[in-house]
Amino acid sequence: MFEAAEAGHRISLEEYKVREPALRQALLEAQYKLLETGNFPVLIIVGGADGAGKGATVNLLNEWMDPRHIVTHAFDEPREEEAERPPMWRFWLALPPKRHIGVMFNAWYHDILQRDDQKPRHDPAPSLDEIRNIEQMLAADGTLLLKFWFHLSRSAQKERIKELESDPKTRWRVTDTDRQHLRHYKRLRKTYEYVLHETSTSIAPWSVIDGSDRYYRSLTAGTLLLDAINKRLAQKRPKAAPPSAQPVPTLDSRNILNTIDYTQALNKKHYQIQLEKYQGRLNLLTRHPRFARKSLIILLEGPDAAGKGGSIRRITAALDARQYRVIPVAAPTDEERTKPYLWRFWRHLPLKNHITIFDRSWYGRVLVERVEKMCSDVVCIRSFHEINDFEAQLIRNDVIVVKFWLAITKDVQLKRFRSREETPYKQYKLTEDDWRNRRKWASYEKAVCDMVTYTSTAISPWHLVPSNDVEFARIRILKTICESVEAALAD
Amino acid sequence: MFEAAEAGHRISLEEYKVREPALRQALLEAQYKLLETGNFPVLIIVGGADGAGKGATVNLLNEWMDPRHIVTHAFDEPREEEAERPPMWRFWLALPPKRHIGVMFNAWYHDILQRDDQKPRHDPAPSLDEIRNIEQMLAADGTLLLKFWFHLSRSAQKERIKELESDPKTRWRVTDTDRQHLRHYKRLRKTYEYVLHETSTSIAPWSVIDGSDRYYRSLTAGTLLLDAINKRLAQKRPKAAPPSAQPVPTLDSRNILNTIDYTQALNKKHYQIQLEKYQGRLNLLTRHPRFARKSLIILLEGPDAAGKGGSIRRITAALDARQYRVIPVAAPTDEERTKPYLWRFWRHLPLKNHITIFDRSWYGRVLVERVEKMCSDVVCIRSFHEINDFEAQLIRNDVIVVKFWLAITKDVQLKRFRSREETPYKQYKLTEDDWRNRRKWASYEKAVCDMVTYTSTAISPWHLVPSNDVEFARIRILKTICESVEAALAD
Repeated sequence: MFEAAEAGHRISLEEYKVREPALRQALLEAQYKLLETGNFPVLIIVGGADGAGKGATVNLLNEWMDPRHIVTHAFDEPREEEAERPPMWRFWLALPPKRHIGVMFNAWYHDILQRDDQKPRHDPAPSLDEIRNIEQMLAADGTLLLKFWFHLSRSAQKERIKELESDPKTRWRVTDTDRQHLRHYKRLRKTYEYVLHETSTSIAPWSVIDGSDRYYRSLTAGTLLLDAINKRLAQKRPKAAPPSAQPVPTLDSRNILNTIDYTQALNKKHYQIQLEKYQGRLNLLTRHPRFARKSLIILLEGPDAAGKGGSIRRITAALDARQYRVIPVAAPTDEERTKPYLWRFWRHLPLKNHITIFDRSWYGRVLVERVEKMCSDVVCIRSFHEINDFEAQLIRNDVIVVKFWLAITKDVQLKRFRSREETPYKQYKLTEDDWRNRRKWASYEKAVCDMVTYTSTAISPWHLVPSNDVEFARIRILKTICESVEAALAD
Repeated sequence: MFEAAEAGHRISLEEYKVREPALRQALLEAQYKLLETGNFPVLIIVGGADGAGKGATVNLLNEWMDPRHIVTHAFDEPREEEAERPPMWRFWLALPPKRHIGVMFNAWYHDILQRDDQKPRHDPAPSLDEIRNIEQMLAADGTLLLKFWFHLSRSAQKERIKELESDPKTRWRVTDTDRQHLRHYKRLRKTYEYVLHETSTSIAPWSVIDGSDRYYRSLTAGTLLLDAINKRLAQKRPKAAPPSAQPVPTLDSRNILNTIDYTQALNKKHYQIQLEKYQGRLNLLTRHPRFARKSLIILLEGPDAAGKGGSIRRITAALDARQYRVIPVAAPTDEERTKPYLWRFWRHLPLKNHITIFDRSWYGRVLVERVEKMCSDVVCIRSFHEINDFEAQLIRNDVIVVKFWLAITKDVQLKRFRSREETPYKQYKLTEDDWRNRRKWASYEKAVCDMVTYTSTAISPWHLVPSNDVEFARIRILKTICESVEAALAD
């Protein structure tokens, strides 16, 4: 991995002076073109040995280009708010918007690279799998992802320290960590090599740059960036290759939705008793000492008028308003549109001891967006994987995820629409969109079946709730939440 | 203040059962109307004695209405990220968007009310002046601001503790703080009374609610909220009264802009020497140990083609990319539009040891928005005050603020426009808007003069920089930043 970067690369000052102005000019032009016509973000991940010129190169790129459209992030140990979320949370929130350039020092490699280090390490760190997944996701989503590794050979590192120490003005820059790193050079190099190999995937390989000569490394990093942006700008967005297989077609008329027993119901009296029982139980659970180390995400999906709003109110009635937040998911805002799809859900992840209830969710991608053909089948099938990965990250990090599909039949929906039309203060709830969606009932049914097939996992199962009877549905939902939380607290 | 709330208010369960359903229904309808047609946010600040029903009432309001459009915030001791910003920062970020209801427990009263308490207090807390200012600002901006204080008389408080203690199942709910508060009842009451009196302004008075009877307090809070929303929905937004005086008119032709000496210039050789000198000085300053406890905000305003971008690049070249962020200010995003004007600047305030450079700023309100009549003169004059208050808060909290007006003459602007037309990669920089703005040169000149008059304060002066010669301007800007930082570090 590092051999080519130890070939003793050098660029003379004279040559640098000739080539730098042209590169600089070209980079600036590329940046402006990206800003005007690009519809993708650029993310540069910078890693490497101490003193190999990571910081200097990033500063130089900022100097060469327009710093107003570059956002640089360095990551220290996670802050309190960060540590209460899955480790990827802070990186997700820092992703650059479309048409901009983001630079992240170490990014999600921050922890994994320190594993071999003497410093205490934040646990749990993103795993190599999570890293490959997020990079795969970003690349598939359109981010131009570049990973620059600045390398120093052992002798170059030794040289650097000697040089700094020889001058009283720079002696302070040599830290104990530097000396330690030199001592453990071989071991560190092995770690780095392993991580770089494991994460040099076809969609986002590392570029290893010899960091010992500043002219060489500056021109190399600049040229890599320039070529990548220009190539991408020139390219028509390639059509993603279709997956080899499509979801299983339905050959008979049976599916998981039309085989539900919709007659299940609860009489009013029973309902009241059960409601109090499960609300009380849920309330106690959210005040359980072990819940303080957990977060809870509840998400509800279902056709219009399936009873999501009413169910949510029966859940929140059991909770303290300071502890939960309800996120109604509608069209993304313009800030959200500039980020990868899941960003707008990451931003709402609850703190420990808190609850987020999503009224519709990230499954919009494989439901409405699929039916309305706002995203292709290819993207949709990719999303199944991304969503599973997202939820797995949550669950690994002490988030309890409970997801519901509120299933109703077509005739019950019609009855509820009619009743909304007749109740003055409910009229606003019924829009032309609802009627439009209703006409696409069959497409939605197909989408839901595929969704459940691909995203109902052992760790994060779908709960299909027969909801023709609202009372029955509400109790089923509350009971399922209680049981899920109980199971998670018992772990 | 508290006398009326000690009159022994009671509502019987029978009466409550009669009145509750109607109130509940009316509140829900009001909420939906707000959501559909309202163009203002509702903010409810909830304060009061322990056990007076703050939490229970907020939970009830969430139960009565649709919790999907209510956001509740409770504030503990500031977290790390919060403590590094001015105390109002976390409250600003939590302001509800238009058409929604926000509930804040204690809000900006959090610290001031604990002053008399035994607990350690976060310092510095928002002062009474800052509190009056933000409430004034919110009200003027259109927020429907309600402040509910739940009161308990000494005997009611005693009663409550006795009652809880008598039942083994509730005994745990009585804390040491409760007992302490009872012991210091008289002193606390005095503090509360003082704070409530001082902040019961004409635009946002407190409503004191007797908290001892749950039926009474629930109906009272609900009714207050219902009436306030309905009254406001029914009301045409009143035209704000014009201020008694307008900015001084210009009777002769002299003003602060046309009396600048625009001939000041710097030759290339001198420029290079000075550039290196001041960039080096600025770099050292940002690595000064005392800078670690400061933040720096630099903002640049000026006509199109005044050289803001070029100056920013000369500043950032002196800095480490990990330490600064450049915020180019353009039209607000749709999320920003739902919040009070200054929200979109509060969200970008730097951490300690960090620097934010604003390329255009909150002064847009009194420049482009005034000239384009996007906001009335009344709002504009109010903004002068709000901006001064904002900057004063920053400065009081260890933020160094340096603001520049880059002044050029009309002929120089024309020359630069022409040169942009001729340079291929600069053409994108010249838009129809630039020509339009140019035609309004005189209006802008007037707006700038008023802006400087009203917002150049002793603690936050405007620096008018003659910028016909870009080299001269860049050095002047760098030098001014260095001197401002030095002065702040010497404090």
